Amino acid sequence: MTGVTVGIVGLGLIGGSLARHLAANGSHVIAWNHRSHPYEQARRDGITCVDTLDELASARPQLIVLCNPLKAMPDMLSRLAPLIDRGTTTLTDVGSVKGLVRQQVVSAGLGDCYVGAHPMTGTEHSGFEASDPGLFDHALWAITVDESTDYQRFLTVARMITEGCANRCIVIDDTTHDRAAALISHMPHVVATALINELTDNPDRNIAAALAAGSWRDMTRVALTDPQRTRAMVDEDAENVQTLLRHMADRLTRVADALQHGDTQAIGTFFSHGQPFRDYKAACVHDTAATRITMPLEPASWRSQLLQSARQGEQLVALRGDMRAVIERHPAVSV
Amino acid sequence: MTGVTVGIVGLGLIGGSLARHLAANGSHVIAWNHRSHPYEQARRDGITCVDTLDELASARPQLIVLCNPLKAMPDMLSRLAPLIDRGTTTLTDVGSVKGLVRQQVVSAGLGDCYVGAHPMTGTEHSGFEASDPGLFDHALWAITVDESTDYQRFLTVARMITEGCANRCIVIDDTTHDRAAALISHMPHVVATALINELTDNPDRNIAAALAAGSWRDMTRVALTDPQRTRAMVDEDAENVQTLLRHMADRLTRVADALQHGDTQAIGTFFSHGQPFRDYKAACVHDTAATRITMPLEPASWRSQLLQSARQGEQLVALRGDMRAVIERHPAVSV
Repeated sequence: MTGVTVGIVGLGLIGGSLARHLAANGSHVIAWNHRSHPYEQARRDGITCVDTLDELASARPQLIVLCNPLKAMPDMLSRLAPLIDRGTTTLTDVGSVKGLVRQQVVSAGLGDCYVGAHPMTGTEHSGFEASDPGLFDHALWAITVDESTDYQRFLTVARMITEGCANRCIVIDDTTHDRAAALISHMPHVVATALINELTDNPDRNIAAALAAGSWRDMTRVALTDPQRTRAMVDEDAENVQTLLRHMADRLTRVADALQHGDTQAIGTFFSHGQPFRDYKAACVHDTAATRITMPLEPASWRSQLLQSARQGEQLVALRGDMRAVIERHPAVSV
Repeated sequence: MTGVTVGIVGLGLIGGSLARHLAANGSHVIAWNHRSHPYEQARRDGITCVDTLDELASARPQLIVLCNPLKAMPDMLSRLAPLIDRGTTTLTDVGSVKGLVRQQVVSAGLGDCYVGAHPMTGTEHSGFEASDPGLFDHALWAITVDESTDYQRFLTVARMITEGCANRCIVIDDTTHDRAAALISHMPHVVATALINELTDNPDRNIAAALAAGSWRDMTRVALTDPQRTRAMVDEDAENVQTLLRHMADRLTRVADALQHGDTQAIGTFFSHGQPFRDYKAACVHDTAATRITMPLEPASWRSQLLQSARQGEQLVALRGDMRAVIERHPAVSV
């Protein structure tokens, strides 16, 4: 990323960690935060901090990464829209939902310069004080594109990830992202919250809490984080979360029925059904030498080529000139 | 526990760890396993290993702890019944369900010398090779009693825990134990399994698996352990698990309905409902100097006194002569 300037909007947990990780890896990072309290430390980490969004935009960074809270997104976009040099600057973000952010970006008239992104990292803490460039060591990102996404702009975001961060990514569409995020994060957060609600309502709650060991602790950890943040995440992906909650309710009811009727076959099927995922996890442990292949991308179909690759469990580790993608093959969940 | 002999039946993960922990803390431990492969290492750890249950019973240990798998329990009990010196030996176990074990003990005609026990420790591994005396450092046990439990026999088990293991315990009845265990362990294991089944059935399972981060890893960890062991645990506590699965299905359906209808009040209530548990967990972090009190126990009501104490979040750390219990006060889930 020599010579590339990355602008970071919002030095919270993710923005702060990303800015510090990029700076430590040699990128020029310029950052703005709505309050200046992180600036002293950020400057020691080699980050150029500015007092206004105007200053940030005027530096004409190749990339601006919106790391502000999702609820501040419409405001940020409307403030940035008149300031950005659209020819030079590509816009991306790190939000945990992608369909909604793209709608907001399009509404602000910035759709042309936008490519979505979501780094799969974080902790239960928040704020610059909790930031840690190590959060971006070996991180995997989702990049989201649509039919109108320009390849050069995609390349700018992908190279920040693969070169600037030395990370990997998969390239998918917003809908696929938001469904997958609902499955592996948003819906499970609701399930964890339902578990602590069930304990809270139990007359023997203190006995249950005393006896709780590793399984309970792990399954409820995310219910202990800020419930308002979780709520926002669920609200923003409500349609997908709702569908998955009904699937889960149905699965749990069917197990209850099988237990009630002593249906040993149904119980056996329930416990063996997820074996492909167990096998996949076991294979991942031994996945020490992933195979790399170079895949030529076609101008008309690079989006679907990369989506198909992601569906097979492959990850993008580099992009060469002439639209050549370097792909790593990883274990897949084989049903 | 000077002069006390503890007999251990079954040197698996829990039996092996307990035997080694007791021996390291100065108890005389005599052990039998259905296969002799752990004996060489166990003897190095100061454990007396014997080849038959007859030899174990003939040593007339004050306490025999059944650490065999639950499915072997009826067989073990019928083999031990004619061998045990009932005047000397008290019988206990470490099974994760207590009502079923008591039924089996009573069926074997050993009800008079039985006190139930369940140490809240373990790992996802099994077998003596995976045993670790450190599993019993600072462990909490449940002791289960019924109306017929003799105080002296209870004392024998409680002192193995508080003196022999330097552990703590709570004293409850089988029903309360099995309901609480279903809530904090057995039902959550089903939920974790349902989560991996949901991923397995998703057409974008590889994308979801790639994006999965800490919340998914924690919430599905227990679904990766031996599904047959989980199934056995669920089968043995089927009635309680079934009830709780229906509660969970209902909770998840209500959130889905609220998301569908944009019922912000219901969603708000859902996310705030478990706040007493979050507050309790926060209080536990600062619970560094628990208050200890001495509680005189009454011959007619010691069981209900100790159950009431457990319901308030208290734990038993020692038993003195003249029926005096030393109790530690811990934070409670205050609704």
